[in-house]
Amino acid sequence: MKFITIGELLMRLSPPNYDKIRTTGSYVVNFGGAESNVAVNLANLGVDTTFFTVLPHNDIGRSAIRSLKANDVHTTPIIKAGERMGLYYLEEGIGVRSSKVIYDRKNSSFAEYDYSTVDFEQLLSGYDWLHLSGITPPLSPNCGVLIEKALKAAKQLGLTTSFDCNFRSMLWTFEEARDVITGYLPYVDVLIGIEPLHLQDENGKDLKDGLSMQPEYEDQDRVFQAMAERWNFKAIARHVRYTHSSSENSLKGFLYFDGETYESKLFRFQILDRVGGGDAFASGLIYALMENYKPREIINFAVASSVMKHSIHGDTNITDVESIRRLMNQSYDVQR
Amino acid sequence: MKFITIGELLMRLSPPNYDKIRTTGSYVVNFGGAESNVAVNLANLGVDTTFFTVLPHNDIGRSAIRSLKANDVHTTPIIKAGERMGLYYLEEGIGVRSSKVIYDRKNSSFAEYDYSTVDFEQLLSGYDWLHLSGITPPLSPNCGVLIEKALKAAKQLGLTTSFDCNFRSMLWTFEEARDVITGYLPYVDVLIGIEPLHLQDENGKDLKDGLSMQPEYEDQDRVFQAMAERWNFKAIARHVRYTHSSSENSLKGFLYFDGETYESKLFRFQILDRVGGGDAFASGLIYALMENYKPREIINFAVASSVMKHSIHGDTNITDVESIRRLMNQSYDVQR
Amino acid sequence: MKFITIGELLMRLSPPNYDKIRTTGSYVVNFGGAESNVAVNLANLGVDTTFFTVLPHNDIGRSAIRSLKANDVHTTPIIKAGERMGLYYLEEGIGVRSSKVIYDRKNSSFAEYDYSTVDFEQLLSGYDWLHLSGITPPLSPNCGVLIEKALKAAKQLGLTTSFDCNFRSMLWTFEEARDVITGYLPYVDVLIGIEPLHLQDENGKDLKDGLSMQPEYEDQDRVFQAMAERWNFKAIARHVRYTHSSSENSLKGFLYFDGETYESKLFRFQILDRVGGGDAFASGLIYALMENYKPREIINFAVASSVMKHSIHGDTNITDVESIRRLMNQSYDVQR
Amino acid sequence: MKFITIGELLMRLSPPNYDKIRTTGSYVVNFGGAESNVAVNLANLGVDTTFFTVLPHNDIGRSAIRSLKANDVHTTPIIKAGERMGLYYLEEGIGVRSSKVIYDRKNSSFAEYDYSTVDFEQLLSGYDWLHLSGITPPLSPNCGVLIEKALKAAKQLGLTTSFDCNFRSMLWTFEEARDVITGYLPYVDVLIGIEPLHLQDENGKDLKDGLSMQPEYEDQDRVFQAMAERWNFKAIARHVRYTHSSSENSLKGFLYFDGETYESKLFRFQILDRVGGGDAFASGLIYALMENYKPREIINFAVASSVMKHSIHGDTNITDVESIRRLMNQSYDVQR
Amino acid sequence: MKFITIGELLMRLSPPNYDKIRTTGSYVVNFGGAESNVAVNLANLGVDTTFFTVLPHNDIGRSAIRSLKANDVHTTPIIKAGERMGLYYLEEGIGVRSSKVIYDRKNSSFAEYDYSTVDFEQLLSGYDWLHLSGITPPLSPNCGVLIEKALKAAKQLGLTTSFDCNFRSMLWTFEEARDVITGYLPYVDVLIGIEPLHLQDENGKDLKDGLSMQPEYEDQDRVFQAMAERWNFKAIARHVRYTHSSSENSLKGFLYFDGETYESKLFRFQILDRVGGGDAFASGLIYALMENYKPREIINFAVASSVMKHSIHGDTNITDVESIRRLMNQSYDVQR
Amino acid sequence: MKFITIGELLMRLSPPNYDKIRTTGSYVVNFGGAESNVAVNLANLGVDTTFFTVLPHNDIGRSAIRSLKANDVHTTPIIKAGERMGLYYLEEGIGVRSSKVIYDRKNSSFAEYDYSTVDFEQLLSGYDWLHLSGITPPLSPNCGVLIEKALKAAKQLGLTTSFDCNFRSMLWTFEEARDVITGYLPYVDVLIGIEPLHLQDENGKDLKDGLSMQPEYEDQDRVFQAMAERWNFKAIARHVRYTHSSSENSLKGFLYFDGETYESKLFRFQILDRVGGGDAFASGLIYALMENYKPREIINFAVASSVMKHSIHGDTNITDVESIRRLMNQSYDVQR
Repeated sequence: MKFITIGELLMRLSPPNYDKIRTTGSYVVNFGGAESNVAVNLANLGVDTTFFTVLPHNDIGRSAIRSLKANDVHTTPIIKAGERMGLYYLEEGIGVRSSKVIYDRKNSSFAEYDYSTVDFEQLLSGYDWLHLSGITPPLSPNCGVLIEKALKAAKQLGLTTSFDCNFRSMLWTFEEARDVITGYLPYVDVLIGIEPLHLQDENGKDLKDGLSMQPEYEDQDRVFQAMAERWNFKAIARHVRYTHSSSENSLKGFLYFDGETYESKLFRFQILDRVGGGDAFASGLIYALMENYKPREIINFAVASSVMKHSIHGDTNITDVESIRRLMNQSYDVQR
Repeated sequence: MKFITIGELLMRLSPPNYDKIRTTGSYVVNFGGAESNVAVNLANLGVDTTFFTVLPHNDIGRSAIRSLKANDVHTTPIIKAGERMGLYYLEEGIGVRSSKVIYDRKNSSFAEYDYSTVDFEQLLSGYDWLHLSGITPPLSPNCGVLIEKALKAAKQLGLTTSFDCNFRSMLWTFEEARDVITGYLPYVDVLIGIEPLHLQDENGKDLKDGLSMQPEYEDQDRVFQAMAERWNFKAIARHVRYTHSSSENSLKGFLYFDGETYESKLFRFQILDRVGGGDAFASGLIYALMENYKPREIINFAVASSVMKHSIHGDTNITDVESIRRLMNQSYDVQR
Repeated sequence: MKFITIGELLMRLSPPNYDKIRTTGSYVVNFGGAESNVAVNLANLGVDTTFFTVLPHNDIGRSAIRSLKANDVHTTPIIKAGERMGLYYLEEGIGVRSSKVIYDRKNSSFAEYDYSTVDFEQLLSGYDWLHLSGITPPLSPNCGVLIEKALKAAKQLGLTTSFDCNFRSMLWTFEEARDVITGYLPYVDVLIGIEPLHLQDENGKDLKDGLSMQPEYEDQDRVFQAMAERWNFKAIARHVRYTHSSSENSLKGFLYFDGETYESKLFRFQILDRVGGGDAFASGLIYALMENYKPREIINFAVASSVMKHSIHGDTNITDVESIRRLMNQSYDVQR
Repeated sequence: MKFITIGELLMRLSPPNYDKIRTTGSYVVNFGGAESNVAVNLANLGVDTTFFTVLPHNDIGRSAIRSLKANDVHTTPIIKAGERMGLYYLEEGIGVRSSKVIYDRKNSSFAEYDYSTVDFEQLLSGYDWLHLSGITPPLSPNCGVLIEKALKAAKQLGLTTSFDCNFRSMLWTFEEARDVITGYLPYVDVLIGIEPLHLQDENGKDLKDGLSMQPEYEDQDRVFQAMAERWNFKAIARHVRYTHSSSENSLKGFLYFDGETYESKLFRFQILDRVGGGDAFASGLIYALMENYKPREIINFAVASSVMKHSIHGDTNITDVESIRRLMNQSYDVQR
Repeated sequence: MKFITIGELLMRLSPPNYDKIRTTGSYVVNFGGAESNVAVNLANLGVDTTFFTVLPHNDIGRSAIRSLKANDVHTTPIIKAGERMGLYYLEEGIGVRSSKVIYDRKNSSFAEYDYSTVDFEQLLSGYDWLHLSGITPPLSPNCGVLIEKALKAAKQLGLTTSFDCNFRSMLWTFEEARDVITGYLPYVDVLIGIEPLHLQDENGKDLKDGLSMQPEYEDQDRVFQAMAERWNFKAIARHVRYTHSSSENSLKGFLYFDGETYESKLFRFQILDRVGGGDAFASGLIYALMENYKPREIINFAVASSVMKHSIHGDTNITDVESIRRLMNQSYDVQR
Repeated sequence: MKFITIGELLMRLSPPNYDKIRTTGSYVVNFGGAESNVAVNLANLGVDTTFFTVLPHNDIGRSAIRSLKANDVHTTPIIKAGERMGLYYLEEGIGVRSSKVIYDRKNSSFAEYDYSTVDFEQLLSGYDWLHLSGITPPLSPNCGVLIEKALKAAKQLGLTTSFDCNFRSMLWTFEEARDVITGYLPYVDVLIGIEPLHLQDENGKDLKDGLSMQPEYEDQDRVFQAMAERWNFKAIARHVRYTHSSSENSLKGFLYFDGETYESKLFRFQILDRVGGGDAFASGLIYALMENYKPREIINFAVASSVMKHSIHGDTNITDVESIRRLMNQSYDVQR
């Protein structure tokens, strides 16, 4: 299976040792982005993976590409253009103190590129799976064009498509997200996250109404069934997070697959690095679907993949299949 | 409101990464002291704040002043004299291992200065609030003079005065502390902490007798009422700590205000840096009193301020009002 | 003397230990900018100094302000607005390897602010000296407005004005710089650097023609005399750099003052941090002029100030008058 | 009491800050080994302690010896020979992520030395206690010779001998371990750990059969009694670990002494550094036996010693008796 | 042009900040080896580059491969086998203090692999240039087989071959090196370094006799001419080093090409990292030959490439063609 | 030969990476003192070495003792008493910027101890050589007693005594130093440094008058001869320093031995760490005298020992005889 994903790669700058942005004397550098995280995660699991983005033609861009290559992600299609790489500052929280993110991603090479000049059929040709996310469309009108063209070309070429809704209220309103993403759904095979979606029954009633952030199985199943009926998804999955503190969360996941809804184990765990947890869920899910795991194993693997990510510095899940599977079985002692 | 506080500023040297003093190859520098911590905390909350102390006229003194200025504390009245800045070594504990403090503060510029030459009425003129603590009097006879002159001048000028008992058994005995501090109480409006105080009923029985370190509401109320009756405090407050381990504590607080005793929520939390927790309680209390919060909000804000401090490196609470208020409502997820 | 300067403050991110941008895992943070460097340098020399700029209202802006305050620079007039702080990446060269700078300063809060709404007469009122530089006008049309309004208001109010030409070919062409800056000269008392200036004799011949980058005294004198005649400067000064390697340079300076040209000693020195060398020349010059040093001492102090800066990390000259004066006398042994 | 122990000293290389081996840019160095850890721990408790090993005659060997000397371990008998020091890479786990160890200890100076040339009676003469462990015999045939000769010489000279079974499946099989170690037992006074031992009743039934990893008191007592009957041990002790996560474990211990089995308190604790926990149990046990603590105190001290180790970086228990005794009483607040 | 090279990749561990091995508390990790350095250098210059080696199938091997991939070196043919990666400790000298190297490379995966099972014609097929060095043959008899088979297969397939003599007295004697390498010369097109070679005239007199380590042009030319006559090299090159101190060296180079000998400029330069200087000479030479530079430019580029390397941490020349060309012209000021 | 020395051990705190004290966020810890440096240096050269001092009985004292033990210095006679360890802050200069030292050593355990209670004959019994320095007497009257008693006991017991004048103007005046140290000279065999000494001819004329800081051979010889005549020294030695900058110095030495004066080579060298250069001269001298080197070798070894020290972090010369001898021959290339 050859996998490709498209999105913006950001430089992440975070103070070391839980220092605060307002007092720090240095920043640790990582590179990440919703889609590139999925790329890096899958490449570490052994999948043949390619990432398409636009980066400036300078040493900042080069350092970002080095980080992808080190992780075995193919970077051949990356376009070098424009003036800057988007970045964000992450102040990592601990205990009762929340993490804070300050974005500085406007006017980036990726957001400003004119994608009408890209031949997406050529770009996507030869791949089996395309992954996109809801982070991209609100970045700029150009980026909206990018997602539409990519989805349509993928369908044309017969790729499996996955889409992670990834709603961010700082980028657009709920209503904007709902309307735009709902328009993409006919081209999507695997849907990840459902928060901003527009799902009405015949009477115009929102079917997600009354679905709590941390739903019971029955409510979740009802919504998944309705969505699957309307858009004919191959799979729908989401994870549910319980935030006990900045340093301790719990996660579980739900998967709709082949007419049924499955619920994972609930994992409670300590957090070393919170960012990229959702992307590790997505990559675990995609991996398990590619490998034709059984449904319950798919959702357990996806959640364990996300849980594992929280114990690793950076946005990405630098680990392997065996470690995730050990975690599914909750075995923690020293390996020697 | 213009706030001023007086005390010794110490250099704190702590091994990084939970290393031990006997093996460390480097020390992280912070500056702190019971009163300067309150100054830095209040300045970070937006209060117009001044700190008075004595520091040596060398680069160590300069580095200390830089740390105050960076935090927006006015340092104009600071006297540069004497030969050394007091310091302490802090070995930060973790889990079952306790933190350890080694003091090296004798013969400091602050302790040896002759305060009889200072005109306290001039120094305090123009301020609304003076804060002092029980750390200062045992440092030297000169320091005892300092506290007495400061309290009397403040009363003369009509400032609100707060006093944090802050009993330290390494500096003086319980009996010395009790006798000296009890003598200050007529000049105090807001009393913080009550451990070493001398409070007898008509039969000479100590009214605090039988008050446990972690008292029930009723016992606490009884003691507060008696104290308020005798010294006519505007407010009395204290926090109560439960030490589950070096890395996990719980805190709650009690406030006597306007004839009634209020008890805060109980917070259980992870510790990044234990030092300055009491000072952050004092600064939260003073802020909330200055802002005329309602009594229950005052004590909850004071405790939340202290809890937040435990998640921040250094002696001080480099945070803002909004973050403390979010913590009062126990909201911990990433802010983005 | 009360000093004020106006300009953009940038965050500087540089890899530690002479690492390269493309491989670094962290960045050291400093804050600097041509004008703020002059502010910080003068404040460290004991001058009452204020800096005016525009910074975003977030923790990045706060960290920048902390760095100014720690250095005793007054930040009261700073406007908090806009979305981002400009930044630049500095790869520090060593030996045969050059330093490299990548700018990411477009669309900054400072560049995008509408200065037509600022009352410069009010802003500058009460100050004795205004310093500006040629970095600002090319940043945006708004910034051009800012410089013009500031210069005219300063003249109106009777401030001494200094202007450091600071030509940067990445921001504008030589011709643009020449035309714009030449327009400012009637409002300038102290001119620093002369590279891009437009100076013709009656036949339209550029008087700077034939002036080498490292001129002889006589050529330099001829040009200074002509410039002083035309614009009536109180002083003209420039420094001349000989780049033996990235780690070793020489500097000397020329000063026109009261009808005569003075040449400083030549200093050859090792480099710890190259950035801000020109700004330290400017601040040394301004300080010596304020203190009414004799002309030869003025230019020696200015060059020694610049030389000293090269031995200090960051953009600024965190030192004191005594240390610069010792350097003027080339005394290097341990001070104990 | 003069204590001596013999074994291999390894260099441990671990990525800082919970980084992963595959991405780390640096390694923190520590020196450790089952027996040298016991030596360092006992020397820190004040026991007169000597360590015998073989190290290469280069700066790596010198750095190892420095670490022993700093801890007051006598290194006089150490032989400098051979070509390399064994090493291992430790990736420290956190939360749900397990620690990982990669050994690179083959062909070490210690493993390849020809111990038939060593006069063990001379080496051990003058000591009161010899400690060995089950790590050594599988390292090489030479090392098997070493253990046998050392045990026999110790018995000859009348030393107390302790042996920590320390079974490692990467070094040999369970059956090999069982057979070899069982052969040593006639020479052992204090047995620590029992996992690989061979203990049959008259019918050839393994008496440890049915003993769970975390046994009940009765089962443990039955096995201890049978072992003591057969080999006449002065004491048998083991600790039992409950792995809640990589960052949180519980420990308790069992001691057979003078015909009775004692069970310690159960400690639940946070982990800073997991390695050397078993060795700290052994050293706590040996210390308490040397000091003639009462049986229940012996096992509580041994477990508290191990628990304390988990809060200290490195393989060894750099602490003192007082701190371990405070921990036995679970007192955690700041010591000042 | 497609380039391939074969050799051992070592992990380098060096104390930070010029610390000494015997006192360091941590090691900085780099990966390097004579041939892999050439690979990484050429890939950074934009050449399509592949590296063949054998590495253990564990996280240490993975981290080494990550470093190659990050530098755009193709790692497809690398074999994962054996038990350990060779390593060396580097104590970086400064000023009067020499650098020291301690090797621990015996029994490595690379040295112990049985290369008789490798089909070198298949391995080398499709490449244009093969580079080998004199480091490999003395590592083990297997490695001798490897070099012979590779050279013969390369000739068979028509690749250009370069060979860097790279004599190391710790690995073999001068006489062994001379005899073995002389046997390779018929298969070599480009010879780099000539120290251990065997070159006699008709009377059995060594033609290199009397050639000083830092020869005059005429002596060098005489030797090159005789060697070219005998083995018909396309090019012969060597660099000559003058060690003023551990922190300052000079380099120049000689090139024999097309019947003539060329001498480069002499560069005197400061050293940040001495290791890999010779490999950067080799890679600069190969690049310039591939690009058909003129002979004098070839040798100047090769020497400048080596000089540049000394200003970059690690074994490799992470730079680009433009930077080396700027250095050839000795331009050092900040690039902005 | 068994060597003992007596003096104060200080904790040195220096900002990393040439940071300044007023801005540093951390300090690197080293332990040093004129006499303990000599002890550590000699122990590293293989001499049996003991150090006597007084240190507080806390973890700071323990960390100091650990550093001595790691260097193989015997610490048995050290007294644990008093309240604090003296310390000093070192700001390391670079290039044109001077190093700065801030002392905080008053009221230390060493300075306040009552040495009248120490039996120096017992303390020194069994040793062959006692080394003292002029740092100690001005520390306190107690310390004056210490030096006198030690010198007299050493003479009584027949030890060789060396005394390093080590004049520090911050501790006492030139006249005080001269008078006190001159009183010690009858008990001194080997005199190191001569700056503050009192040497008059029959007319009361100071024989050192006219001796420049960097004397010619003839002037030096004249003074040495006169001193030797008067006090009958076994040897007199001094080193002469030329300070080109904070990063580059030159050193040479003079030795009077057996009636003749010898002058060493002149070494010019780069500086990594300036502190302890004089102590390394003393230790090199003592070592060479103990080993009965020839006079010219003695003074060359002493100077090379000092030169080497400048390339090593910390106060002490962590090196070996072979490295110093290589440096005497100015061989700098990588050792591998």
